[in-house]
Order: sequence, then structure tokens, then C-alpha cells
Amino acid sequence: MANTKLKHILESQQFDRSWIEKILFPEADQMRKMVSVAKIKPYLKDKSICLLFYEPSTRTRLSFQNAGLMLGARVAVTENAKEFSSAVKGESLKDTIRTVNALGFNAIVIRSDVEGGATEAASVSNIPIINAGDAAGQHPTQSLLDLYTIYRHFGKVDGLKIALVGDCKNSRTHRSLAYLLGKFKKITLFLVAPKEFQMRPDILDYLDRHKILYKQVPKLTDVAGNSDVVCLTRLQKERLNGQNIKFDGSGVRLTREILSQLPKNSIITHVLPRSNDFNELPEEFTNDRRIIIFKQVENGLFIRMALLKLILTP
Amino acid sequence: MANTKLKHILESQQFDRSWIEKILFPEADQMRKMVSVAKIKPYLKDKSICLLFYEPSTRTRLSFQNAGLMLGARVAVTENAKEFSSAVKGESLKDTIRTVNALGFNAIVIRSDVEGGATEAASVSNIPIINAGDAAGQHPTQSLLDLYTIYRHFGKVDGLKIALVGDCKNSRTHRSLAYLLGKFKKITLFLVAPKEFQMRPDILDYLDRHKILYKQVPKLTDVAGNSDVVCLTRLQKERLNGQNIKFDGSGVRLTREILSQLPKNSIITHVLPRSNDFNELPEEFTNDRRIIIFKQVENGLFIRMALLKLILTP
Amino acid sequence: MANTKLKHILESQQFDRSWIEKILFPEADQMRKMVSVAKIKPYLKDKSICLLFYEPSTRTRLSFQNAGLMLGARVAVTENAKEFSSAVKGESLKDTIRTVNALGFNAIVIRSDVEGGATEAASVSNIPIINAGDAAGQHPTQSLLDLYTIYRHFGKVDGLKIALVGDCKNSRTHRSLAYLLGKFKKITLFLVAPKEFQMRPDILDYLDRHKILYKQVPKLTDVAGNSDVVCLTRLQKERLNGQNIKFDGSGVRLTREILSQLPKNSIITHVLPRSNDFNELPEEFTNDRRIIIFKQVENGLFIRMALLKLILTP
Repeated sequence: MANTKLKHILESQQFDRSWIEKILFPEADQMRKMVSVAKIKPYLKDKSICLLFYEPSTRTRLSFQNAGLMLGARVAVTENAKEFSSAVKGESLKDTIRTVNALGFNAIVIRSDVEGGATEAASVSNIPIINAGDAAGQHPTQSLLDLYTIYRHFGKVDGLKIALVGDCKNSRTHRSLAYLLGKFKKITLFLVAPKEFQMRPDILDYLDRHKILYKQVPKLTDVAGNSDVVCLTRLQKERLNGQNIKFDGSGVRLTREILSQLPKNSIITHVLPRSNDFNELPEEFTNDRRIIIFKQVENGLFIRMALLKLILTP
Repeated sequence: MANTKLKHILESQQFDRSWIEKILFPEADQMRKMVSVAKIKPYLKDKSICLLFYEPSTRTRLSFQNAGLMLGARVAVTENAKEFSSAVKGESLKDTIRTVNALGFNAIVIRSDVEGGATEAASVSNIPIINAGDAAGQHPTQSLLDLYTIYRHFGKVDGLKIALVGDCKNSRTHRSLAYLLGKFKKITLFLVAPKEFQMRPDILDYLDRHKILYKQVPKLTDVAGNSDVVCLTRLQKERLNGQNIKFDGSGVRLTREILSQLPKNSIITHVLPRSNDFNELPEEFTNDRRIIIFKQVENGLFIRMALLKLILTP
Repeated sequence: MANTKLKHILESQQFDRSWIEKILFPEADQMRKMVSVAKIKPYLKDKSICLLFYEPSTRTRLSFQNAGLMLGARVAVTENAKEFSSAVKGESLKDTIRTVNALGFNAIVIRSDVEGGATEAASVSNIPIINAGDAAGQHPTQSLLDLYTIYRHFGKVDGLKIALVGDCKNSRTHRSLAYLLGKFKKITLFLVAPKEFQMRPDILDYLDRHKILYKQVPKLTDVAGNSDVVCLTRLQKERLNGQNIKFDGSGVRLTREILSQLPKNSIITHVLPRSNDFNELPEEFTNDRRIIIFKQVENGLFIRMALLKLILTP
């Protein structure tokens, strides 16, 4: 069976459904329990983890760092590998990875500034590589925590109607989540974005192949009344690379009207950070109990603890 | 009684005198003893502390970090949250704080780049916030260590004549120390600065309300012969925001003349860093035994160890 | 005997040969053994180490950090002391070092951005200073690991023919290694560089005084067939300070021709990073078994573990 023993964590497609439901989620539940009573077994004692971050991060970096530390690992972090590592002297990513391999580390968590960076890293690494976001590529641990958040709320994923809202084209988290949802049954996906930000063909093909029903609509009001889950995301300004696209976020922003349309038992997620410019999830709505964005963050800690344990222990 | 259980550490005014003298200082003495024999009890085992620094720091960051580590805590640090965290993507401080709350941390030490940043952080935090300096606002742990340094030298604070020298207007440490001294009796405060850098009215009002005698003078020579404690500070260039004020530091710089005026048993403190431009405490005088600036640094370690223990243990 | 007890590690000249062979290398072998079976004794439990890096680094920083952590030490790191420490406020290096001394740390590992930085640091430090590279000055722990790599391969250093190739003028690692090799017997040194990048007179004088035979040649092909060890290095662009020197690396770059000239039992080292511009050690040759550049990195970990233990334990 695939994934019984993880080697690297590179993209959402690599996980199969039974591993997610039977192995990963129960392990994350276990982590939650241990953290809640402040009795955490040092599963990663004598392990060293290196966090290489080539792009800014708060959530992902701090959650991997605390996840590792809570499990007893030694954690070395470079906050901005792009400027303060040998990358500035022209070192290739491959040499950096070979170096970290030689320095006694047991795993590398990498946020790359180029799509495919984590996969390139894995190509020369004898120790596990965990993709913590590779530019416009993927962010598989984020999509696993999003899925875990949905799963915990509904007790299942099959049969849900899920809206991916906002910049579907460039959001690595929307892309990664779409891949993951392809593993489940009777899902309806609403892809909510103006044309310029619609999902790329590679994902649409994947959804077709996996018989996932999807519907592309420009405005959240078109589907809000019929959605179980609304996944918001910010406009990925740093991915636009100077394209002159005018977009004020209308149609993909949470409003009072949409909140009134959304079912009582629905949930609203956001991978964070939310942006003040774009204002897709206004601060004033933060306390609506359907908005579970900081539950997601917490779930992220447990998922990453679980992944680190699964990848680093026999 | 106030402060029997600390929730947050935000400003100097929050502490009452008896807590400082009966709880905090004895705890700091205890830390000193443990460190001196290298037998430090792991009071913070199983606690995670997050250091969020939005402005440069050596002393404060390293002292909180080593204080936490020596007490057995896990410590995650962001050296420059302004550039390398999600702040660059437009995330609000509140969301960052809510995130760190959700990631299993037990306390946040924050150096904010805006006045009031720590208080804003506390407004949404379920875990303790420790203000490690908020721009031109306050720096309460610094003023506590300054007070502790004075207290250890004289065995008391009441009745002392204390000169706050230099940029009283913008120095958060002078401001915080003035607030703290307001808790004590028969203090005489010399506020030594040219007009443009004199203490702001909020502090003067506070001193009046607390019946602290103060005298505003332009030059240290006016009061040096009569001072028990001289607190120097550098010109806060980064606070001037391009104001075109010409000030070469004359009158508020330590000189051989002032050293000869100062009483034998006086002490000279400086929150550091001292600046080479301004040269308020010339390197050549460093070994004068009244200059106890690195004793202050050491005391800062013990005070921060004590505060972390008091805030994080039952 | 010199070096029986280390105080600081500042320059390669300070070590004597018998200490290197009888104390340091066996200790490094011991570390290798412990790491290989994942049973590392916590020799540095209760020790705090501060890593102050004023210039970018991956290898050296991560190897000191993991070396310290694996031995049980607490390690505090500043990735970019130049921008995010009090250095930006004009603090002198001496005050920073005095501060770290006062904060309960037991050793400082410093990468300075000025030649002589580590020695200046040691002049005011009561705790050990370890030079992790001081601009165009020295990098003694690198040269010790280079020597250890040579020693492990040949079982000796005496009598070897060693080519130092590339920017001999500015490479602190070539300079440091030349100093170290001066301790051994019957060494032949080939200094392979165009005139503008030849070794400076201070090193040549040292080699003369220590009766080391050396030969200055412009091209590696002149000596490749006769070399036991080839030490490559990149062009230190950041040391040129805008000098308008045109140099494309021809003559000091590894080529297929040179690989065919080099003896079967020779080794090729590189302190890394290798540069893509200069291309002195092309990626395509990485798997030639004489190229042991990542063995060097691994040896660096063991040497630094050994040094930390020797300098911090009785």
C-alpha cells in the first residue's frame, strides 16, 4: 500500500484516502489529546529538523517549529534563507540540501520561492523533505489541515458541497485542496472566481478524471445558499508579477448578505493571512461561529505534529 | 491585591510596589543564585514561548531567549517579524497574535514597531503578552531591571536622587522608569535634557499626581554633584522621523568633569546600546566602577527569568 | 603545553600539531561514532551558546547550531546581526560581546563582517570566542575540518602534495589552511592562481619560516598530475569591493582534462558554496568519487562538536 511509510511530503496527490482517514487523522487526534493535557510524548527525541524558509511565513514556520519542539526534536530554523544563507553567494538549492543532509539533520521542512523547489530538493535528499509551500506550486500540509478541519466538523468529507473562493488560479492552497478532494466521493466543488482568476486546466483535468463535479461561477452569492464549506483566500499579490489586472475582490468577499445566505451548519475557512486591502474576510465578522479560521491554525499544529511523527519514527 | 497573579506585562504602571519588592526582586535573587551555581530548576519545562520582534534587538531578545531556555522552555524566535512574517502580506497584528495563541504557545514576548502594539496584542490574546518595547511607548521589563539594579546597589529606592538624562521625550525606557519611580517615596527626579527633548506632559502629570519632586534642567553639570543615580540614554534617532533637530549631545554626555562631580557611591546606568555618534557614555570611561551598565544587562536576565516564571507557573 | 586547555579559537596558527592529532581528531572520531549510532552524550547540558552571524552562512551556522543542540546545549542564533541587532543603532562590537557575556551564555560563535572581528571580540570576553569566519581574515574551524578530511583519507598529512586553487589572495579558508599546513612536515604546496589572486606575502613569509616548499603556478594543469589533494574555492566576489578585475576562472576550474590527470587516490575538496558563475567545480562532476565535498561538510559537524566539547567542558 502506498504511504504506509512516508518518504517525502511533496504534493497533495501523493496521499491515498485510507491513509489520510485511518492513519493521519487519528494520529492528529492523538496529538490534540496529548497537547490538551500538556503531556506530550517525546517521539522525536534525538532527531534534528531543519526549517529552510525562502519566503516569509508566520503560521507555517512557527507551527512546524513548535510541533517539532513539543515532540522533543531539536529544530534549527533559517527565517530568510534567500538573503542570509549561502544562496546569496550563488549556491544551488541542490547543494544546500546535500549540505543539510551531511550535517546530521533527520528531516528538512522547506518553503521554496520557486515552483517545484521541494521536488528538486527531494531529488538529492536521503532524509525526508516536507514541502511547506513552493511558490505557486503546492502546500500539501495546509490542504491536509484544511481537510482535517472539514472532516472534524462534518464527520466526513464525502457528499459535501465545497466552495473554493477567490484567486483559484494562483492559490497553491486551493490547488492543493482540490487535488485532495479528488480522493473523495460525491463532492461538489464550486470554483468561485472571475475569469482571470479561475482554476488552471491541470486541476480541472484532474477533477474530471476523478469524477468530481465542479461548477465555475463568478460570484459567491451564486452558490452561498447551497454550500457546506466556504474556503476563502486572499488575492496573491506577490504572484501577479506586475500583471496589470484590476480586481477589487467584489463577488468573492464575505458580506453580511452572504453570511445570511450560508446554511447554519456551514463553515467558513481561510488559509490566512487575510488581507486588509482585499478585505475578503472582514475583521468585523471574525466572531461569527461559522468562521473557524483559528481552529484551522490549531488543527495545523496537530496535523504537522502527526506528519513529523509518522515520517520520522519507525 | 493587584499583581498577585500576572496576566500580561504591558506597562510599568501596572505593578505595585509591594509586589515588586516582596515577590519579583526575591525571585530574581533566587534566579541569580541558581545561575551562579549552574543549577537551574526547569520551572518552564513543557512551556513554549514565542518571541515576536518587529524591531532590531540584541539584548532584550537574547535575554528573553536564554532566560526561557535556561528555565527549560521551548523558545521560538522571529528576529524580524516585519519582513519575514505574514506581516508583509498585510496580516493584522491581531491575527498574528490569534495565530500564535492557536499554535500551542504559552506566552508571547513582543517588540512592536508601533506604540500601543503590546496592548493591542493583549486585547485578543488568551496567553500572556510581555511587552519588550513598543516603539516610543514603554519597555516595562527594562525599567524593572533598572529599578532592580538601583535597589541592589542602595538596598532601597525611597529617598534617592535620580537623574534621567538625554532624550527624555522619546526614550521609552526613561518614560517607563519614571512611571515605576512614581511608586516610591521621597524620590527626587532630575530630568536632564534640552527643551526639545524634555519629558512629555503625560509623565509630568503622573509625577505630580504621585507627589514625585522633579526638576527640569538642560545640563547634567547642574545636578551631577547631587545625584545618586545617573541614567544615561542615547539619542533615539530612529524616533525622530526626519525632524530636523540639531543636537550634538552637549550637556547630557558623560565627561571627565561630570565624573569628578559625581559622588563616590553614585551609579551610572545606561539601557544600551550606547551610540558612537552621540557618544553619551564614551568607551574610555567604561571601567569606572560607578558605571554598572553590564551589571544591568545581567540583572535583566534574572528579572526576565523571574517574570517568565511568575507569569507561567501557578 | 599550549592548547591543552582552549580559551578562544581565533586563528589556525594557534593550534599545535600534537594537540590536533592527539586530542582534536580522536575527539572528532568519537563524535562520529556517537552520531552514527544516534547515542550522543549530552556533554553540553546546561551550557548556553550564542551564535552571532554578521554575514550570510548556511553550512557554518547550521553545523555549529546542530553540533551544539546534539550535545545538549541551548543555542541562541542571530542570523543577521548586522541588520536585526543593536548594531543598526550604532552599538560597538565590544559592547555586544560584553552584553552576551552578561546574559548567561557560555560561549560565542561569531562570523564577523570585518577582518579581526573575532580577535576584537576576544579582547573583551570572559567566555570563549570561536571565530566562524572574519571577512578576508581567517576561518580556523573550516581549515581544521579540511585538514581532518585530508588526514582521514591518507592517514597522515606529512609528505602530501596539496594544491590550493583559485582566489588564494582573498580566500580566508585557503589562508587558514596554509597556516595549519605549516605545522606539518615535507608538505609541498601548489598555489594555483593568476597573479592578481596569488597568496599574500604574510602567508608566503610564514611558509618560508616553517620550511614549507611552495610553488606558485597560474594553472591547475601545471600540477594536477602531481597532486594528492586539490582544494578548490570560488571567486570571492563579495571581497573584491568593486575592483575591476576580469577573471573568468580559466586555469583554476575543474575540467574533464584535469580529472584525467589527477591520480586515482587523490581527493578534491571545496569549502563550498561553489558558484554557478565561476563554475570552478561543475555540478556534472559531483559524483566522481575523488570529490569529497559533502564528506567535508559531515567532518565539519564532528570537528565542531569536538571543539565545542573541548572548549566548554573541564
